[in-house]
Amino acid sequence: MRMPVATRYGDYDTKAHANNAVYLTWFEMARAEAWVKHLDGSPDFPFIVAEATVKYVSEAMIGQPLEIEMTTTEVRTKAWVWSYVIKDTSDGRVVAEGRTVQVMYDYDKHATVTIPDAMRAKLPSL
Amino acid sequence: MRMPVATRYGDYDTKAHANNAVYLTWFEMARAEAWVKHLDGSPDFPFIVAEATVKYVSEAMIGQPLEIEMTTTEVRTKAWVWSYVIKDTSDGRVVAEGRTVQVMYDYDKHATVTIPDAMRAKLPSL
Amino acid sequence: MRMPVATRYGDYDTKAHANNAVYLTWFEMARAEAWVKHLDGSPDFPFIVAEATVKYVSEAMIGQPLEIEMTTTEVRTKAWVWSYVIKDTSDGRVVAEGRTVQVMYDYDKHATVTIPDAMRAKLPSL
Amino acid sequence: MRMPVATRYGDYDTKAHANNAVYLTWFEMARAEAWVKHLDGSPDFPFIVAEATVKYVSEAMIGQPLEIEMTTTEVRTKAWVWSYVIKDTSDGRVVAEGRTVQVMYDYDKHATVTIPDAMRAKLPSL
Repeated sequence: MRMPVATRYGDYDTKAHANNAVYLTWFEMARAEAWVKHLDGSPDFPFIVAEATVKYVSEAMIGQPLEIEMTTTEVRTKAWVWSYVIKDTSDGRVVAEGRTVQVMYDYDKHATVTIPDAMRAKLPSL
Repeated sequence: MRMPVATRYGDYDTKAHANNAVYLTWFEMARAEAWVKHLDGSPDFPFIVAEATVKYVSEAMIGQPLEIEMTTTEVRTKAWVWSYVIKDTSDGRVVAEGRTVQVMYDYDKHATVTIPDAMRAKLPSL
Repeated sequence: MRMPVATRYGDYDTKAHANNAVYLTWFEMARAEAWVKHLDGSPDFPFIVAEATVKYVSEAMIGQPLEIEMTTTEVRTKAWVWSYVIKDTSDGRVVAEGRTVQVMYDYDKHATVTIPDAMRAKLPSL
Repeated sequence: MRMPVATRYGDYDTKAHANNAVYLTWFEMARAEAWVKHLDGSPDFPFIVAEATVKYVSEAMIGQPLEIEMTTTEVRTKAWVWSYVIKDTSDGRVVAEGRTVQVMYDYDKHATVTIPDAMRAKLPSL
């Protein structure tokens, strides 16, 4: 799944480049898009993030147009991995790469649960 | 170096636990404390973050008192690694662990530079 | 000028409604859109915000689609006022209203300056 | 009630001064301190913010030490007003002033409620 990154002025720091923490928010925006639009989920996610990694490849300066591509790269029983590439669309330059591990979670029971079949079927196509 | 985490209401999400992205901000707060108070640096950091990883070990719910411990775990020519452990001080439970790789950077010349000797001498004691 | 609000999961707090501070960020997103797209300005704004007010009219819950309308409601020599209305587009309900006063600013000279003529001509049509 | 502002690197924008939206977060930090420590309240506030105003008096640059003073300036049946002054403690300069109107709220019943007597007794002394 690919989409433009709706950046905000406040995402950029005193050097006018994107703050390191905001990349995890950008990854989260891709997850929200996938979850709500492609997996028919609630905007109040029923999963937890267990691990996150970001590699900052080149600077993202204010005003540069960015897009994010998110791909399902692994599906386990209760967990799955999404991998991300953020590019500057004006020159194709990779700005950052990363991955997050998600675990399906029942917030009422406070317990991890198995990925539902319908979701498991759709995950690889993202 | 160890310090309390000055959490904010907005750090917590719709489930009342800390949002995954805010941990990188908490790591950054520890870096700022170390940089300004222990390494006599400018609050406008002269380094870049090249890589960041977070492992979310247990939930950090709103109201729980947190502390962060940051340790220098590797020093190279231009780069160094800081590792982090965040704990709930009410029960000693580990909430998250992580690491970031920093590279010394000259923002005027847009180039990576060698870690200054005075800083190199102090890094391991953090 | 009217546009959808590109909300983020982190904009919502422990009660699943939008945090009070984030409305000023949403106002800023409208200013950025107007500034870059309609006034041909730099994404690094050459003005300062001198005053901001928000009236929270009704709750904005996670998942509700929002749009923001921004209007120029006053133009002085160096300053101008933008007024905002945020609505839930699913039912037309007003979520918030507000206004900000901007002052044209020369960041090199650290001084307020007169609004350029070309900009003054365009401001009322936003 | 007076307290230092625990600023964050990400609070500062591309000009190295505090972003306009973050002042509402700083106000919220003062409310949280007052609420939890002085009014014995839950960190999950049982009130809503109905209105907020900020006047940006002078620039808050990165590295400048700030403190916030919050005062109860009006108490009604269900609502009360808190007023804020943020100063640079290195020179006593006022950075910003503002006020917020809070309304006591029962989140289960989705209804505004009367300020409890015990709280009403304590509010003026903040």
